[in-house]
Amino acid sequence: MAQQWILIDSPQSHVAETPRAWTGEHHGTPLSWQLGTLSGGRSEGVQILRVQSGATEFILVPTRGLGLWQASRDGQPFGWSSPVAGPVHPHWVPIADPSGLGWLEGFDELLVRCGLASNGAPDFDSAGRLTCPLHGRIANSPAHHLSIAVDDQGTLTVTGEVRETRFLIRSLRLRSTLRLRLDADVLELTDEIINDSAQDTTAQMLYHLNLGRPILGPGAELLAPVKELAPRDPRAAEGLARWAQFEGPQAGFAEQVYFMRLHCDDSGTSRAMLRAADRQLGCGVTFDHQALPYFVLWKNTAAEADGYVTGLEPSTNLPNPHSFESRHGRVLPLAAGATARLSLQIHLLVGAAAVDQFATEIASMEREQATSLVHRAPPANWSA
Amino acid sequence: MAQQWILIDSPQSHVAETPRAWTGEHHGTPLSWQLGTLSGGRSEGVQILRVQSGATEFILVPTRGLGLWQASRDGQPFGWSSPVAGPVHPHWVPIADPSGLGWLEGFDELLVRCGLASNGAPDFDSAGRLTCPLHGRIANSPAHHLSIAVDDQGTLTVTGEVRETRFLIRSLRLRSTLRLRLDADVLELTDEIINDSAQDTTAQMLYHLNLGRPILGPGAELLAPVKELAPRDPRAAEGLARWAQFEGPQAGFAEQVYFMRLHCDDSGTSRAMLRAADRQLGCGVTFDHQALPYFVLWKNTAAEADGYVTGLEPSTNLPNPHSFESRHGRVLPLAAGATARLSLQIHLLVGAAAVDQFATEIASMEREQATSLVHRAPPANWSA
Amino acid sequence: MAQQWILIDSPQSHVAETPRAWTGEHHGTPLSWQLGTLSGGRSEGVQILRVQSGATEFILVPTRGLGLWQASRDGQPFGWSSPVAGPVHPHWVPIADPSGLGWLEGFDELLVRCGLASNGAPDFDSAGRLTCPLHGRIANSPAHHLSIAVDDQGTLTVTGEVRETRFLIRSLRLRSTLRLRLDADVLELTDEIINDSAQDTTAQMLYHLNLGRPILGPGAELLAPVKELAPRDPRAAEGLARWAQFEGPQAGFAEQVYFMRLHCDDSGTSRAMLRAADRQLGCGVTFDHQALPYFVLWKNTAAEADGYVTGLEPSTNLPNPHSFESRHGRVLPLAAGATARLSLQIHLLVGAAAVDQFATEIASMEREQATSLVHRAPPANWSA
Repeated sequence: MAQQWILIDSPQSHVAETPRAWTGEHHGTPLSWQLGTLSGGRSEGVQILRVQSGATEFILVPTRGLGLWQASRDGQPFGWSSPVAGPVHPHWVPIADPSGLGWLEGFDELLVRCGLASNGAPDFDSAGRLTCPLHGRIANSPAHHLSIAVDDQGTLTVTGEVRETRFLIRSLRLRSTLRLRLDADVLELTDEIINDSAQDTTAQMLYHLNLGRPILGPGAELLAPVKELAPRDPRAAEGLARWAQFEGPQAGFAEQVYFMRLHCDDSGTSRAMLRAADRQLGCGVTFDHQALPYFVLWKNTAAEADGYVTGLEPSTNLPNPHSFESRHGRVLPLAAGATARLSLQIHLLVGAAAVDQFATEIASMEREQATSLVHRAPPANWSA
Repeated sequence: MAQQWILIDSPQSHVAETPRAWTGEHHGTPLSWQLGTLSGGRSEGVQILRVQSGATEFILVPTRGLGLWQASRDGQPFGWSSPVAGPVHPHWVPIADPSGLGWLEGFDELLVRCGLASNGAPDFDSAGRLTCPLHGRIANSPAHHLSIAVDDQGTLTVTGEVRETRFLIRSLRLRSTLRLRLDADVLELTDEIINDSAQDTTAQMLYHLNLGRPILGPGAELLAPVKELAPRDPRAAEGLARWAQFEGPQAGFAEQVYFMRLHCDDSGTSRAMLRAADRQLGCGVTFDHQALPYFVLWKNTAAEADGYVTGLEPSTNLPNPHSFESRHGRVLPLAAGATARLSLQIHLLVGAAAVDQFATEIASMEREQATSLVHRAPPANWSA
Repeated sequence: MAQQWILIDSPQSHVAETPRAWTGEHHGTPLSWQLGTLSGGRSEGVQILRVQSGATEFILVPTRGLGLWQASRDGQPFGWSSPVAGPVHPHWVPIADPSGLGWLEGFDELLVRCGLASNGAPDFDSAGRLTCPLHGRIANSPAHHLSIAVDDQGTLTVTGEVRETRFLIRSLRLRSTLRLRLDADVLELTDEIINDSAQDTTAQMLYHLNLGRPILGPGAELLAPVKELAPRDPRAAEGLARWAQFEGPQAGFAEQVYFMRLHCDDSGTSRAMLRAADRQLGCGVTFDHQALPYFVLWKNTAAEADGYVTGLEPSTNLPNPHSFESRHGRVLPLAAGATARLSLQIHLLVGAAAVDQFATEIASMEREQATSLVHRAPPANWSA
């Protein structure tokens, strides 16, 4: 059944005649995809790619930097309910707003990439002019290439490319591959950041994995093999004793952010999980520790109406302004023509067995590692 | 004949199959609507809704915050000729331009809303960075919902919704209802500003009703039951003696703006009218005085080529920078989940009888009220 | 065979039913045009007009201010390879970015206009806020009118209009006519900048003609009848001795810019040419010297990946910040309602005969003129 489709390959002078949907099966497991275009309000013109393989389903948004909008497993939704009500076409997201905060008008994905040249808080030049918008530009850049392949084992692979180019300044490219094995509960993401320029540059990447109901709720927990942890600021320090526990929605809850380094296993893999209170549901993330040495927990347990959500964020750096991170060496050097490879897997854990197994893996990593350093206040080189 | 159509309900995964036009009649009076999409230049992709009921016709622009682009009665046009040559799709309007003046590149409606979080002159933070663009964001935000209903009496009701949301910052929503009774000469607008957040916030709204030829011309007059009036600045003070009279087009005419509070009648209604020199044509506006306690007259009788126009502007506040208005308490408090209701009617007055009757109503309000305070210069708390 | 087609005439309430393509011939020479819309990535929705007449072909982009994207003659391409990978829809180009450099995200044309209100380096107000973005707004503004005519001699004429309007601030309009005589190797451009306002204003225009491979290469030369020349800055001064010679691609090459005034012939025409090393290929430009009294050479012989390119730029002014140019009188005064006319021809020179003849014309101008003043450093009134 091996097949391949090219869905976007820009610029095209005509709308592709390629099938916009396909349905198949592999040994009785259904497998399908559909490429659609939304209409109405801020979603007008947004292309979405929906993929289903057995009990797993996910939606990618090529128009929004190939972000992962939503996923589900056995009918259980993974994602959150953002007041933004997207997916929002980047044309409506004012990322060049002088405040640097326009990005917040488009934020509603399960997984949004923050990069490529920069991520983190907005940065400004000495005249107060925005240089790096909040969380960078890639999530509001369109894919110029999108293709899908299905192999003989029923593994589905989506490959896409997104550019972040400003003439004379930078020429970065994201090449992303998302693989879903037949009916598996793991979305396997491999990203390459390519420096298309003949000059050296740097990059940053943070994977903003956002979870709300039903996993998040009072009694939900963050499990992670912490090596070192610090609150980002005094507000986060207030909640330090219970940094890994979650409360219910609280109107006006001001976000608490924790910066961490995690342990990794012998293969160099780190992992973390948000586990529901009843331990029947969890979302795990595993990732290459060397490429993504930092892990950020964003607790935003505000009212449902304002986005009751937490973010699990493997990252190349800490989400401070780019100039601060650069000063502390937390940027990814990319030589002329070089490629950095980042890999991350999202585990859609449904049922006690799957949840417990993932928790056991984290616990065994914690046992094997002696140290766990918790700072009462942010180290000077960690927080801007 | 009662019917309802949902024309926009975002996000939709397919273009709605709903009829895009409808024609009916009620006891011999024709009634119809058409939803179209413009193409070419800066109008590419703009959706417009044209409604006709007897001798009254109007065009709403869902793509531009449900603004009222144009109206006519008995073939008499109400509106103005803007050099902007729209309707302009918001994607072409740089409202995040650091100057805060990008809004001016899309301004050409008969009625444009200025809000929801703010209106008035641009505001900046202490570093000189734009915080509130001129007249806010709502006019350049798209409706995510639009529906039409016709009832058994031939009354047509258009209902739409527009969001103004920035995650963590604000979550406001406009729900607007425009009602046209069978063949009536009044467009009845009821707006709700809804705070979808679980946190308290504030809002502002100014209705920028703009009129040019044929009502505006030498000898045209503004009629209003003035309780208190002040020129906005020295330039307006120059024209104070003849603030209610209009001259012909004058190249280079610098705008003159007058801030007012009007009297209201026992039912709490204020009113004002621009009356043509020959008193055969007028545009009246009536509005809920408690919700819209300020009234602004914008005289911009520049050359025709530059937009010969005047604005009648019922408002929750004065159009100073938001921080100035906030300091003086002229913002609308909106508790978590609360809704503010604003209502305003636009009277398309054709013929001496209709014009005279509206003038009489204003005159009787003036007679009943003793006071009319005119400041020679702007009070310190009125002008930034 | 005389015919005319109106392709864009905004706003239209329906997509034009006009033919979107036409093919004809004149005494055996084929002649054709096609209007298409691109899809995918940042090119989504970009309209392009391709014209062919005998051995000459060119592509205009109405969506990008009627820029000339590419041209070819006898199969030889004229243009360059930009890392930007366009044509880029203006909706993706953040020209209001506080840095003023967002224009660089859309730059990939053979000929791009820089204007109308301003061109050159970004300019800022005293608070550091952007007032004039790099190279102005016209290249990222859409044509609201586009028509084509073919006359009985097989001459094809494309006429288009683009607005640059901000209510109260400016109301400029570009009316551009591009003429291609039957199978000729010259694209004849006549631009009018129209001040639609009743108030006086000023304008600027720079024609950014960009050439890369195959004309540009080691040993390529710039030929021009220089009257006065100065390096823009110390970096350009470094290369002064060989300002007219080109080297091969060099990674990290920092741009060198030379400001010039050229001689003109008796008819008031100036000319310049980029000639390939083998003298078999060249791109010439002739222009009205009075209207375009300055000529800029932009040498950007960086690596191919970063855009190996040089710009030949006839201009009304020098590309300094607008306030600097205004102070030195290098803005085009435009009275109320006035029109400035600029004309420029692009010569697609293929073969030694065509190249040599153009070189001879330049040489004869140099012989006839005595003076050629070369400054070692930029004069104070030439460089900001």
